[in-house]
Order: sequence, then C-alpha cells, then structure tokens
Amino acid sequence: MPLPFDAKALRGISEKLIQSHWENNYVGASKALNTVRGRLSQALADSNTPPYVYTGLKREQALRTGSVVLHEFYFGNLGGDGKAPADLRTRISQSFGTYDSWESEFRKIGLGLGGGSGWVVLGFNEHLKLLENYWLADHATNPAFTKPILVMDMYEHAYQMDYGAAAARYIDAFFANIQWDAVAKRLA
Amino acid sequence: MPLPFDAKALRGISEKLIQSHWENNYVGASKALNTVRGRLSQALADSNTPPYVYTGLKREQALRTGSVVLHEFYFGNLGGDGKAPADLRTRISQSFGTYDSWESEFRKIGLGLGGGSGWVVLGFNEHLKLLENYWLADHATNPAFTKPILVMDMYEHAYQMDYGAAAARYIDAFFANIQWDAVAKRLA
Amino acid sequence: MPLPFDAKALRGISEKLIQSHWENNYVGASKALNTVRGRLSQALADSNTPPYVYTGLKREQALRTGSVVLHEFYFGNLGGDGKAPADLRTRISQSFGTYDSWESEFRKIGLGLGGGSGWVVLGFNEHLKLLENYWLADHATNPAFTKPILVMDMYEHAYQMDYGAAAARYIDAFFANIQWDAVAKRLA
Amino acid sequence: MPLPFDAKALRGISEKLIQSHWENNYVGASKALNTVRGRLSQALADSNTPPYVYTGLKREQALRTGSVVLHEFYFGNLGGDGKAPADLRTRISQSFGTYDSWESEFRKIGLGLGGGSGWVVLGFNEHLKLLENYWLADHATNPAFTKPILVMDMYEHAYQMDYGAAAARYIDAFFANIQWDAVAKRLA
Repeated sequence: MPLPFDAKALRGISEKLIQSHWENNYVGASKALNTVRGRLSQALADSNTPPYVYTGLKREQALRTGSVVLHEFYFGNLGGDGKAPADLRTRISQSFGTYDSWESEFRKIGLGLGGGSGWVVLGFNEHLKLLENYWLADHATNPAFTKPILVMDMYEHAYQMDYGAAAARYIDAFFANIQWDAVAKRLA
Repeated sequence: MPLPFDAKALRGISEKLIQSHWENNYVGASKALNTVRGRLSQALADSNTPPYVYTGLKREQALRTGSVVLHEFYFGNLGGDGKAPADLRTRISQSFGTYDSWESEFRKIGLGLGGGSGWVVLGFNEHLKLLENYWLADHATNPAFTKPILVMDMYEHAYQMDYGAAAARYIDAFFANIQWDAVAKRLA
Repeated sequence: MPLPFDAKALRGISEKLIQSHWENNYVGASKALNTVRGRLSQALADSNTPPYVYTGLKREQALRTGSVVLHEFYFGNLGGDGKAPADLRTRISQSFGTYDSWESEFRKIGLGLGGGSGWVVLGFNEHLKLLENYWLADHATNPAFTKPILVMDMYEHAYQMDYGAAAARYIDAFFANIQWDAVAKRLA
Repeated sequence: MPLPFDAKALRGISEKLIQSHWENNYVGASKALNTVRGRLSQALADSNTPPYVYTGLKREQALRTGSVVLHEFYFGNLGGDGKAPADLRTRISQSFGTYDSWESEFRKIGLGLGGGSGWVVLGFNEHLKLLENYWLADHATNPAFTKPILVMDMYEHAYQMDYGAAAARYIDAFFANIQWDAVAKRLA
C-alpha cells in the first residue's frame, strides 16, 4: 500500500524518516517476503530439505509477514490530529479503567522497548473478547487471534533519524499524529 | 474451557497425557495469566516501576495469553475421526496447490519443531486474506491478525509421555484425531 | 561425546529417558549441526542467497551449536552423588550470600521454565568476573562470554517421560545426581 | 568503561552517534542492570513471587548483561585503522578457508540484521575450539561458552543517525575503524 498521508504532513516526524521507513522497511519487507515464499516452494519440493532447515525459512516468512501487516496498520493509524473522539475514549476507558491508564500503559511498554526493537499494539483479542495492550518483541510476536487496533512501531528506524535515542519524544510525536478515525473503524 | 471430548477417546494419545496436558499446561496457563494480570496492575500503579521491568511482565502476559488461546484451539480441533471432508480439502487445495502440499508442509514444520517447543498453525491471515501454514516458536509467536484454523501443539508435553522423542509418530496420531467439523466452522 | 556415566546409574532419572535424551537430542543436534554447516557453505558460495535467507540458516547453527555444547556440560555434571563439597559450597556462598540463596534461585528459574523449554546455568561470566545463575530461553540464549559451571536442562525431554508435568520432582532428581567433582573442575 | 578512543576520531561514524550510543545504550544498560539486580533480590526474598514472574526479571538481567558485555567488546574493537595484520589474516584464513570468506560471511550476517536488531560476532567457542562467525538475534543470544573476538553492533542505534537505513554503508565504516590490535589480543 502507498503511504495513506502526505509524507510532509506529520508533525515531529520528518518527511525523510517516514519516507525511508515506508520504502526501506515496509516495501523492503514485502519484497523479502516474496523471495522467502519462492525459497519455501523450492525447499518443500526438494525431499532433501531437512525439517530444521525448512523452519529456518518459515521463521523468515513469519518475520516478514508480521512486518508487512504491522507496518500497514502503523502507517494506517498515522496522519491525523491526535485527538481521540469521545466515544472512543469511553470505549477504551471501559477496558482499562480510565483512558489515562490505557495511555500510561501503552507509553510504558513503548519506553521499555526503547533502544531495542518491537511494537506496541492496542489489540482486540477476538478469542478472549478483550481489548488489551500488547508488547511485541519483534515482527513475529503476537498473541494469537488479535486484531490490531492501534499500532506503534518501536524499532529504532521509527525514530532514531529524528530523535536519536530519545524514544520518549518519539512517543509524544506518535500520539500527536494518530489518525483516530482509522482506529475507530478497526474497533467498530 | 473443559476438554471438548472424552479424554479416553483419542486413538494413540493416552488419557493420562491429554489429562495432564489440559490440567497442567492449559489450566496452569490460565491461572498464571490471572496472576500476571494482577502483578501488571500493581506495577503500573507504582510509579517506581522502570519500563524494562514492566515489559518483563508484559512478556509473561503475552506468553500465557498465547498459551490459553492456542490450547483452546488445539483441544477444540481434536476428538474427531481425522477424515477431512471433501469441500474442506478443496478449499485447502486452492490455497496450497494440492491438499498433499498442505499436509506435507504442515507435517514438515512440526518435525522441525521436534525436540523443542512451538506450534504449527494453519491460519487465515485476516489482513492479507491468505490461508497459510505458520511456524510458531513459542506461545507468543504469531503473524499479526491471524485466525487459527487448525492448531497442532509441538511442545514436548504434547507427546513425550506417549512417544518419547518420536515426534513423527505423534504427528500421525494428531492427524488421526482431527475434528474436521470444528476446523470447517472456523474457516467458514 | 559418549555418556560419561552408566545410563542405569542415575537415581530418579530412568535409563530409558537418559538414553533417549543422549541419542535423540544430543546426537541428533550434532548431526543437524553438520548438515547446517554444509548448507551454510553452499549458501555463502551462492551469490544469489539473500542475507535474510542466510541468517535463517545461521539461526539454526546457533541453536544446534548451543544444544551440542550445553548438552555436553549437562551430561558432564550428572552421575554423581549430589553432595556438594564444602569448599565449593563456600565458593558459591561468597557469590550468592548463602548457599541456600543460590540453590533457591537456581531451582526457581527451573520451575519458571517448567512446561516450556530452556536451561538453567550457573555460569562464570569471564568478562564481568561474576558467578551468576542464568535463565536461558532456548539453546541459543546465553549471556556473552559465560563459562557454564552447572547446567540443568529444562526442555521437557529432560523429564516428561519420567515425571510428566512434575518439573519440581525432576529438579529434585537432578540435584540428587549432580557430579560435583566435575562442577568443581570447571570452576577451578 | 569509558570510550577507549576519542569520540571524534572515527571515520564515517559521527561523534554525535558514538557519544549517544555509548551513553544511552551502554551506560543505560549498566544502570538498568543494577536496577534489575535489586529487583531480583527483592523478588527472591519474597516467597510470594511465582517462578514465571521471577523469570520475567531474569530475562531482563540476561538482556542487560549481554548488552553491557557486548558493548564493551564493540567499543573495544573500534578506534583503529581497519588494517588487519598479516598474522591475524592467516589465523582467520585457517578457520574460514580464506580471509575473504570470513569477511564475506561476517558482512552477510550483518546485512541480514539490517532494519532490525542484533549483533555479528566472530567468536572463539572455548568448548568446541572453533573460530566461527555467529548471528545474535539480540543481547541475550550467544552460543554457549564463546569468547567474543570481533563484535559488530547491528542494532539500528549503531547507524541510523548517520546512515538511515543504509546498513551496508555502516558496515563499511565499521570495517574501516576496526582496532585490530585489540582483536589480536583477544585471540591470543
């Protein structure tokens, strides 16, 4: 998918960074995923492939698949004014006690990933019927059967170019640019 | 959830094993998840909790959540006669070229996890609209936004008691007991 | 390496289990490692190999290498009478406050891995000059530059056959069979 | 440890980046490790701590310990002129066939980690008596009992500020600044 907003339009996240993020990390993951799929077909057709060699490739598939999906959700929830509509705040409050509790936990998970890599996801677990914040260690982490509602990339490519190691300032910028209408649609 | 079938009813998977699996691994994960949730509430309320201590707990939440959800899908797709209905075979063939290709890959991923731990999941990726087999390294691995359709536990507690290290024989037993009607409902 | 003790000699760990563990998990890992090394040579020589496909194989190398090394330390510290000599107890006490603190932490890490997979290692970090207990999530986890001193396998293949899910009883059996002379030599 | 070279002295790696890397990632990890150790003492003394909560903290200890150790090796092998002395080239050739094979694999592993996080380590496995290149998925990955000889940080904080997503250009800069005398001492 193309960037769903003007790369110049974000406040506090530079055009250069977001363009590099989209092209190198998202488009790059899509291409890598295609290559991995081709390799998997070859490896499956070759009866000499040991299972533990095959799973090495499946891991790459899992990582690239997660990267593609999560990046689409991430870019899809940016480009807005960061103002959560009242009904969404209410919906979130119902699950987290207060809206501030939700935001506090979401930010805390992000800070804990600073200097490393991973994602923070407000997700709706379709099986447990729970709206929860999740910590993702990498592209391939995810609690089973969870619909991403709000996704924040904490890989350092999401902020180092603009903020260096100051992950907290990036998190502020992320919040300021949330496209809440898109988020609301996912939760509907 | 209770075991959705008589623990004595499986062929090639003993009552003792399935009972232990359900009680120790699934019920145990549910209890642990509750405890972890309590600890998370305390830790979030305590402003002295460093983010990297908090994420240690979030990782445990991710693991236990995945364990609860995946075990419910696993037990939910056992207890049948292992005979895939024709329309489901057709549906799978459409995604994997042939039904045999699907089964061959599903088994290969399982063998690659033998002697270790993880899951094999035939999943429907709701975002990419793809039916694919996934390799899960542990309870917290999962390609984002994937609905589990057929789930095979490859943690050694799923087979060591009956088969020792012979993971391939367990995979045969798993296939012989698939409850395909339940699988079909998930895909509908 | 061959088993450094008579497979019948352990108390509370059956000949059948230890034989299977040695043959299927340790010898199996050695063989897999050789295969992976061959695949790596081929892949490196082929300029069409994308880096992310290559790293999939390197991960398998890391896992099998860790499995071979850790299993040799594990079998190497079994076959004894479980009685830690006084000077070793003193040495451990100096690092952990008391010998009981050490044992209490070592066992606790083991229990935390119950139902999953991993290792507990009393290790000497050669860089930090610290004797510490480490939690290893899998064969490829390890704090950099750590010499294993006492190694306990917590993969379920180390106990399920004898104890089912009762990891605590396996940990008791492990302690009863520690070959402390071998441990002392590693620390010397 | 302080930076073992003048932060202004590297070619192709800016003072700003290396200063931030040292202070935020290395010093930050040291501080976090101290905090985690304190939390572990409290948690071990509290008999109400469930093992799976305790292992959440042990994971953080493993990560911070690896981060401290690997960063010290990394900074310790920078600040040189990048010219490997003849005897070291010979030593490396003996293990890898040719020196170019070694460098080719080392760089390939690095490229495979581009856009994510991890380390590339030329390490001497003290148990297997092998000099090999290792792929480390994160701070806590490592083949057991391996002495780091040459360490390259591939977390994005090692290059994003200077090179954005161009990991290959960072790898060139890394090679141009290797302090080979320090590397030789580790291998001696």
